[in-house]
Amino acid sequence: MRFTAEQRHDDGVLERSFTLGDIPGILWTLASTPAPLLLLGHPGGLPAMYPRLSGRARQAAAAGFASATIELPGSGDRPRSATADQARADLRGALAAGEPVTDDIVDRLVLPLVDAAVPEWQAALDALLPLPEIDGPVGYAGGVISIGVRLAVVEPRVSAALLFAGSFVPRAIFDEARQVTIPLLVLLQWDDEGNDRQMALDLFDALGSTEKTLHANLGGHTGVPAFEGDDGNRFFARHLK
Amino acid sequence: MRFTAEQRHDDGVLERSFTLGDIPGILWTLASTPAPLLLLGHPGGLPAMYPRLSGRARQAAAAGFASATIELPGSGDRPRSATADQARADLRGALAAGEPVTDDIVDRLVLPLVDAAVPEWQAALDALLPLPEIDGPVGYAGGVISIGVRLAVVEPRVSAALLFAGSFVPRAIFDEARQVTIPLLVLLQWDDEGNDRQMALDLFDALGSTEKTLHANLGGHTGVPAFEGDDGNRFFARHLK
Repeated sequence: MRFTAEQRHDDGVLERSFTLGDIPGILWTLASTPAPLLLLGHPGGLPAMYPRLSGRARQAAAAGFASATIELPGSGDRPRSATADQARADLRGALAAGEPVTDDIVDRLVLPLVDAAVPEWQAALDALLPLPEIDGPVGYAGGVISIGVRLAVVEPRVSAALLFAGSFVPRAIFDEARQVTIPLLVLLQWDDEGNDRQMALDLFDALGSTEKTLHANLGGHTGVPAFEGDDGNRFFARHLK
Repeated sequence: MRFTAEQRHDDGVLERSFTLGDIPGILWTLASTPAPLLLLGHPGGLPAMYPRLSGRARQAAAAGFASATIELPGSGDRPRSATADQARADLRGALAAGEPVTDDIVDRLVLPLVDAAVPEWQAALDALLPLPEIDGPVGYAGGVISIGVRLAVVEPRVSAALLFAGSFVPRAIFDEARQVTIPLLVLLQWDDEGNDRQMALDLFDALGSTEKTLHANLGGHTGVPAFEGDDGNRFFARHLK
């Protein structure tokens, strides 16, 4: 991991850009360290996601958490994937034609992404956890819920997860969901145009954890109320501190 | 309203039993007054519900709220209703026989209760709000969700409601739900044996408020996690303070 830029914010949060091999990432740490780490998931495209991720990281910092994120495979400035581009085109075509999105399209869209991304998040943990600013258990917070589910199953360093329901989920991930045992908070936007509400409820039902909570709010995909940031911080405070 | 007994708790909360006509009730107020009032709903039977209601009231007091509750018509020490007893017997008979609970049974069980209870909660407000210990907008928190829905529609002094999904809801109440406009937090126990999960989700969907949040937790009817008490207090703090 190589730090490439840094800035200190007014609230004392140190924000550092880094590269891990060819993967760009961002780390936010506290002046008063060490702190438990939150991995901030997102749908891909760090430059476009930066305002939201930075806001979430600063809110998490105020609650005593360090945060980090990395770019997803095939997104932002990383090399694009021809198979993912094809699957995305098929998805757009099905939606535009009013046709059902088949399991085949969802599998081709999501499963290679999960397969590629999860080892990268694990490599990020390898690089981040030795830093003196970071200590304690790790939480995963954010989107591409399939990545969060896989990480929760395969990565024992992740102790709690806040999952954002808002993308297509392959059937295979439902099977993995039953193996999840860590505490979960699942966020669902009730009127998310691009999201299948019943599928999100079915996924919540399938998750194997004995402590799981669903927070559903009115509004579309990007309309998560500000108070859910506080709720998320309190969820992680219960499980990471 | 006539106070019939009082005790001061270690945390400074003053708990007073009262009667309003022939309706028994309990009021919890703070040493440092005045405070916004929460009406604590429940399924009926104050003596049996007392430990849970008292715990909820003390938790609300720690967050700066006064609380009050009254006995439901036909419950506890109040005169029983022959029609309600018949409907309850029909409900038990249907459940025991594995037969569907018909709309007719639900209507006979719930609608007369709502019709009788809501004016009593309003009369309790008339009696409680002039007290010097109470000031500010009112919240309704708790069970018999149909009573909470009706109150939210007809009683302008109720500014926010935390509704506990856990009982049968008549179709007529779904129509009233569309008229609700106050902020809502709906609690759903995901594995509540006596509750129809899909019906609870449909009711959440039907509620007309533009700010509404659903919190679903794993577990049965009485298994609401302790952290939901804090969440409820923060919900009311956002809307009543």
